[in-house]
Amino acid sequence: MKIGTFNLLKTEGYARRGEFCTAHGVVQTPVFQNVGTAGAIKGAVDAFDLKALGCQIELSNTYHLHVRPGDQIVRQMGGLHRFMRWDGPMLTDSGGFQVFSLATLRKIKEEGVTFHSHVDGRRIFMGPEESMRIQSNLGSDIAMAFDECIENPAPREYVKDSIDRTTRWLRRCKAELTRLNSLPDTVNPQQMLFGINQGGTYDDLRIEHMQAIAELDLPGYAIGGLAVGESTEVMYHILDVVLPHAPENKPRYLMGVGTPSNIIEGVARGVDFFDCVMPTRNARHGHLFTHNGILNIMNAKYQTDDRPIEEGCGCPTCQRFSRAYLRHLLKSGEMLSQRLLVMHNLWFYNHLMQEIRDALEQGTFAAFRAEYSEKMSKRI
Amino acid sequence: MKIGTFNLLKTEGYARRGEFCTAHGVVQTPVFQNVGTAGAIKGAVDAFDLKALGCQIELSNTYHLHVRPGDQIVRQMGGLHRFMRWDGPMLTDSGGFQVFSLATLRKIKEEGVTFHSHVDGRRIFMGPEESMRIQSNLGSDIAMAFDECIENPAPREYVKDSIDRTTRWLRRCKAELTRLNSLPDTVNPQQMLFGINQGGTYDDLRIEHMQAIAELDLPGYAIGGLAVGESTEVMYHILDVVLPHAPENKPRYLMGVGTPSNIIEGVARGVDFFDCVMPTRNARHGHLFTHNGILNIMNAKYQTDDRPIEEGCGCPTCQRFSRAYLRHLLKSGEMLSQRLLVMHNLWFYNHLMQEIRDALEQGTFAAFRAEYSEKMSKRI
Repeated sequence: MKIGTFNLLKTEGYARRGEFCTAHGVVQTPVFQNVGTAGAIKGAVDAFDLKALGCQIELSNTYHLHVRPGDQIVRQMGGLHRFMRWDGPMLTDSGGFQVFSLATLRKIKEEGVTFHSHVDGRRIFMGPEESMRIQSNLGSDIAMAFDECIENPAPREYVKDSIDRTTRWLRRCKAELTRLNSLPDTVNPQQMLFGINQGGTYDDLRIEHMQAIAELDLPGYAIGGLAVGESTEVMYHILDVVLPHAPENKPRYLMGVGTPSNIIEGVARGVDFFDCVMPTRNARHGHLFTHNGILNIMNAKYQTDDRPIEEGCGCPTCQRFSRAYLRHLLKSGEMLSQRLLVMHNLWFYNHLMQEIRDALEQGTFAAFRAEYSEKMSKRI
Repeated sequence: MKIGTFNLLKTEGYARRGEFCTAHGVVQTPVFQNVGTAGAIKGAVDAFDLKALGCQIELSNTYHLHVRPGDQIVRQMGGLHRFMRWDGPMLTDSGGFQVFSLATLRKIKEEGVTFHSHVDGRRIFMGPEESMRIQSNLGSDIAMAFDECIENPAPREYVKDSIDRTTRWLRRCKAELTRLNSLPDTVNPQQMLFGINQGGTYDDLRIEHMQAIAELDLPGYAIGGLAVGESTEVMYHILDVVLPHAPENKPRYLMGVGTPSNIIEGVARGVDFFDCVMPTRNARHGHLFTHNGILNIMNAKYQTDDRPIEEGCGCPTCQRFSRAYLRHLLKSGEMLSQRLLVMHNLWFYNHLMQEIRDALEQGTFAAFRAEYSEKMSKRI
């Protein structure tokens, strides 16, 4: 299977069961990407653990790694795969989202963005070419386009200008990555570029932008700028509106989303890739995903509960430890609680995607959606 | 082999190679006990990891578990072995050391000590009987006597009164544990009691106290009240003075000690058991043990160093990750750094004990001591 190929294996309504080929292996979709921001998963989980948790794609953050340890260092160490010892498919974001959310913003110009590092205040310039060079140094399998991520809602005029600039930036990304991939000492010469659709909450701008970036015939397309202030209904509406205009034979990635319910609803609308910090972040507060909803392990009723987080769960934590022990660890501030709870939540997300893929293969996704979409995201 | 049996397999000078039988397995000595304070090892290491790190005895803290989650809760969960899923030998301290160091001290009386919990300020009374009841609820294999741990130096008169009281307390510990072990629903009816030698830095008081407690014919004896303010030379001197008066056919445990050098020197003087938070605590600051000394992973020279912490090391961290990656993780504040660095240090300590046992078996301990005693504890 040629790198960059996306095979649509089966569909049910708008939902798609597919496979996507990268230089580090074939990804079965729909898929949830596990977030390892700075080359490590929050909660003391390493690349070997990720494999055991059923992770198919690891996602790292370009901005964080550029700031520390520096992408030149990572390149010198043989790229991020080798540095963190993850040998499967990997995606890096463009740094754009962090530049617009974490860093002290300075100025957006046609060339790119000047900002100050959140670590040491150092002045940094990043534009499409810089983002591609950093991601090329990291050597991920999928590089994301450098775009402007706008909060919702935003004035129509601003959004229109922004998507036009993001389209121009995308052309520059494509040209630069093509150049970088042809260099003799590139870390991962088969690195691919995904474009990112923007347009805020304006249906027509979303469609206009998707059509514009589809023309560049990239190996994949993301929907960006959602889950950044708008309601869930608006997010689903945008997916309904824009996905029919995304190329059918390319994977679609809904960035930064979301709850199990959001994922099931995203799949139902034709999304193939997801990512979110929710499983790790929620775990840190003791909020644990189960098929019956979100369990709060700090609840007093679990003090002497000898059962695992979810009965029948195959994760390393549920196979070994009781709710009572996990509650004790979290209440005592033991770091071990973070690891065990994060492992459960990541396994739950990866296993959820497996259940979704199984349902799609068996033509029972509609029934799966009806049973779980609401239930999984409620608090129990 | 009967529980409580200590077989002396071989000696070299004062150093001893032995084995000690507990209800959860036979311990090969000299041994280093791995500290899991509240039923978890600091740095996100669980009971299954401990096995992989070569740990033979896990040590938990009575005071911490009494305060949180409460020893009654642990008992209800089937004891600490089952609660934390450690199925090997386990020792619990008496709570005495923490009462005298962590808690807000109230009053020492003949009955015991009244103090305030460091977690919620709650008033707690603990005497020999209470300590035994808590340790019985935890169900460890070795319970430590409830003693007074005095800082060094302390006035002679005070030390004399204190060791006499500690001897009286030991008799009460023995009587109470005998009673608890005979109850029908005891968690671990084969729990054993180790006495603790005190006497500050006074040779004659140390000897007098050791002779007094040896009369109780307990399965093991600890040297307490060292590494609490006195110099290393004084500590070694006390060992030289007191160990000849410890029963030869019982294991000897040097509490809270120490550096690799302290351990080698302790073995050379006839110590069989050790414990210390040093491998976990040092790991958290990036101080890593090697055969050539203590490596500080934060050092800039490791930024692009592709080698493991120590070449040839068999620990899970050295088998997989580079100095450069570990340095990056620690600098970035990633929790994963704690886990990987703690695993190396614990493995190093457990492996060091294996090397010491091997040397004793081969009659080469003197050479081992000459080569490594100084070298391992210096900073490189």
